Amino acid sequence: VIAEKKMMPFLCRHVRGFCATITAVRESDEQKGTHGMTTARMIPDEEATGLVREVYDDIKATKGIDFVPNIWRALAVNPEHLSATWFKLKQTMAAGALDPLTKELIAIAVSATNGCRYCINSHTGAAVKLGMDTRMFSELLAVVDVFNGTNRLADAYQVEPDAYPEVPPPK
Amino acid sequence: VIAEKKMMPFLCRHVRGFCATITAVRESDEQKGTHGMTTARMIPDEEATGLVREVYDDIKATKGIDFVPNIWRALAVNPEHLSATWFKLKQTMAAGALDPLTKELIAIAVSATNGCRYCINSHTGAAVKLGMDTRMFSELLAVVDVFNGTNRLADAYQVEPDAYPEVPPPK
Amino acid sequence: VIAEKKMMPFLCRHVRGFCATITAVRESDEQKGTHGMTTARMIPDEEATGLVREVYDDIKATKGIDFVPNIWRALAVNPEHLSATWFKLKQTMAAGALDPLTKELIAIAVSATNGCRYCINSHTGAAVKLGMDTRMFSELLAVVDVFNGTNRLADAYQVEPDAYPEVPPPK
Amino acid sequence: VIAEKKMMPFLCRHVRGFCATITAVRESDEQKGTHGMTTARMIPDEEATGLVREVYDDIKATKGIDFVPNIWRALAVNPEHLSATWFKLKQTMAAGALDPLTKELIAIAVSATNGCRYCINSHTGAAVKLGMDTRMFSELLAVVDVFNGTNRLADAYQVEPDAYPEVPPPK
Amino acid sequence: VIAEKKMMPFLCRHVRGFCATITAVRESDEQKGTHGMTTARMIPDEEATGLVREVYDDIKATKGIDFVPNIWRALAVNPEHLSATWFKLKQTMAAGALDPLTKELIAIAVSATNGCRYCINSHTGAAVKLGMDTRMFSELLAVVDVFNGTNRLADAYQVEPDAYPEVPPPK
Amino acid sequence: VIAEKKMMPFLCRHVRGFCATITAVRESDEQKGTHGMTTARMIPDEEATGLVREVYDDIKATKGIDFVPNIWRALAVNPEHLSATWFKLKQTMAAGALDPLTKELIAIAVSATNGCRYCINSHTGAAVKLGMDTRMFSELLAVVDVFNGTNRLADAYQVEPDAYPEVPPPK
Repeated sequence: VIAEKKMMPFLCRHVRGFCATITAVRESDEQKGTHGMTTARMIPDEEATGLVREVYDDIKATKGIDFVPNIWRALAVNPEHLSATWFKLKQTMAAGALDPLTKELIAIAVSATNGCRYCINSHTGAAVKLGMDTRMFSELLAVVDVFNGTNRLADAYQVEPDAYPEVPPPK
Repeated sequence: VIAEKKMMPFLCRHVRGFCATITAVRESDEQKGTHGMTTARMIPDEEATGLVREVYDDIKATKGIDFVPNIWRALAVNPEHLSATWFKLKQTMAAGALDPLTKELIAIAVSATNGCRYCINSHTGAAVKLGMDTRMFSELLAVVDVFNGTNRLADAYQVEPDAYPEVPPPK
Repeated sequence: VIAEKKMMPFLCRHVRGFCATITAVRESDEQKGTHGMTTARMIPDEEATGLVREVYDDIKATKGIDFVPNIWRALAVNPEHLSATWFKLKQTMAAGALDPLTKELIAIAVSATNGCRYCINSHTGAAVKLGMDTRMFSELLAVVDVFNGTNRLADAYQVEPDAYPEVPPPK
Repeated sequence: VIAEKKMMPFLCRHVRGFCATITAVRESDEQKGTHGMTTARMIPDEEATGLVREVYDDIKATKGIDFVPNIWRALAVNPEHLSATWFKLKQTMAAGALDPLTKELIAIAVSATNGCRYCINSHTGAAVKLGMDTRMFSELLAVVDVFNGTNRLADAYQVEPDAYPEVPPPK
Repeated sequence: VIAEKKMMPFLCRHVRGFCATITAVRESDEQKGTHGMTTARMIPDEEATGLVREVYDDIKATKGIDFVPNIWRALAVNPEHLSATWFKLKQTMAAGALDPLTKELIAIAVSATNGCRYCINSHTGAAVKLGMDTRMFSELLAVVDVFNGTNRLADAYQVEPDAYPEVPPPK
Repeated sequence: VIAEKKMMPFLCRHVRGFCATITAVRESDEQKGTHGMTTARMIPDEEATGLVREVYDDIKATKGIDFVPNIWRALAVNPEHLSATWFKLKQTMAAGALDPLTKELIAIAVSATNGCRYCINSHTGAAVKLGMDTRMFSELLAVVDVFNGTNRLADAYQVEPDAYPEVPPPK
């Protein structure tokens, strides 16, 4: 994809008919729901009915976007799983005792710790929309760096906890 | 340790001399720096000299505590590593574009994703000191739950990113 | 806990009043919902109301047990997260294209790969109820062993996929 | 590779001589065993002798395929490791108390939890050959999703096991 | 277990008959192969026959010890898996292009990165036998610390490799 | 990138002006510090001032290279984090009780266990410079394979440690 992104402008300029063909095939891909190389066919927006339709519409309305991101189109192969996952995520990410940006920062921390490429890009994009700049991003990643390191030190030195705190209820 | 914590009051009440002995041995342990079952001997506060002394004093001053937590006493076997780790962590956790509580929440998210028992207890305690209550804690863990799950979905369905965001510089 | 489990019979036999005291304190713990050393107070069955009550009752009815397992009592600090997590899990583990035992085997595989002690014990117990014996368990773990090993070989040798399969729809 | 797969048909149609050249170079690559960008040279089928020959032949016979997958050609740089790994894997994946499809589902669960791209594609392909459809695949991944999430909750809330089951021997 | 190890001397001194009872029960446990709280019964040395016997004898001879460590007694529930695992491990850890101590250091690095308590203790013990001191151990763990941290930075910043090295054959 | 590397020679030969354009754009990219698809802009060598300048110069001098690798240019968005990370890493990887090659092998083991593509390539390259050949590399990876597998067995069988070693101080 990286190669594609960088080569496209050159190829379009230098290979006759290249871009027209690419565009045509992409639209065709979109119609068939086959986009990229997922392990299961992604359900395109046009084919969505019933529970999938309801979730797709709610995703677009909630996020204020006019397309359904790839991850949800992949999950749509199992409408019940799609629905339970989307509505739990939506409820989890809504403003509460923590604000939405803080929640996106936590989502990036988890995704970075797991090395999930799709998720890192997706949540970095979402956090930018909510106001994250490079200073905040780099401070977040510095924390991710430090504790991925020291977590393994605590395990390797087999250090017992100094205390067992119990988190207090809200005042 | 769990058993110990629960049994202690009973044993002290029911076994003559038990608590006096325990207390004596603990103090002795502390003097020798052998506490728990770490894979390397922890350097006790009394033995700290040079670089280790400097770090121990800075830890106590920075955190406003009168003891050196186990993890740092374990790292002290290698003074250079102790020093580089402590000063990098101190710098990383200081207030900046993100506030200290947000940074502790991120530290908990990383430690939970890695399943590090010492670190979960340590950072939960630190976050409580900074004002975290059960509502904030449970919302943090809900985010950790959701994205540890969906990270693996994105990988398993082999979903390509929808976009490659670039985080903007601070305004 | 291990020490506790092994010592209890001896202590009860040898320390006068030990077992009576333990039993009394346990019942008191249970009433207060403080059991073990969780990072947040677990909500005891007696205090459950509203959404928590509904979930607790459904857990007991669905699993055919007369107590609420620790994990759910911990999640109850956040009723919405408890509810979304329980109903998604219940739906996910129900018989479908895969039978419940196969799903429990997969849950053990995930929990072992993550090294989650509570989860390994919990799902091993659930799989035993559904008929898992040591032959099945050891074959499951042999698969977990082999692919945790070879996963890292594929990453380390940086081997490109031989093919990009697309899973077909049900016939 | 993704870009390659999608661009090839266009390039072949639009750039004169492109496909003939590609094909020639590929065959040449294959002869030299240099395929892709692995960190060690993959041993091509033609060069396999001794223990490597024996393993390559057994892989093709066991799997009913006429080529040696990339992972095994990478391991062949160390014939003893190749042999021990292949024969242990073959024995592990053979029908036993669990059938081969169930074992492939477990292999996918492990590979998804580890985020191993080669392995996810490889085992998804193998499971499809054994009958896995999108309904089974999506139910498998729903279980992977749920327990990667709840594993971290059990760790973060520091929940003690409710029981320590012992798996019974086969009847 | 930690509590047990620390309490034992006190209990033996203060609770009449305690140590005699403990000792008797332990010997009985050992005979039955039930030691600790494993999820499957460990096969005791006395019951080992056939393939299990062969592996148990080879473990004791290879390691120069007079008992079979817990992990192998747990694996013995599946003799074929026990055998394939032991002989692959034995071959892997033998002196080759890397010496046995270097291999144990790598085993500790992997076990620390995975947070496996049994394995950290087991390989730390093995490395000590081969000459590892606290200076070597702490330098090993410093490397484990640094790269568990920076691995996540490379993933989170989505940095492309600077080069794709191919490891050369031995001279 | 893989596709790019393989296609370039063909495209240069077959598409008029292709290579000249590519080269021009690359140089332009380099000047702007935008290389690849990182989540934050990489600071190019030309823009480095102050603390970043100091670190960039030390990286080039220490490694004996004439460019700044991508990971450091990404970290430069936060000069304090860049500096603390580089100087800790430099100190950690210097010859000590363990030689630099052994330390690079450990770095590969960690990176493979975490599945970090950038890091695997980077440390494999560094180890090759220090003398690693395919025999050493494959023995390293065999150890990584075996213990990523058995780590999960120890966790899944819930095996208690046989001993709690304490690493001795240097003689």
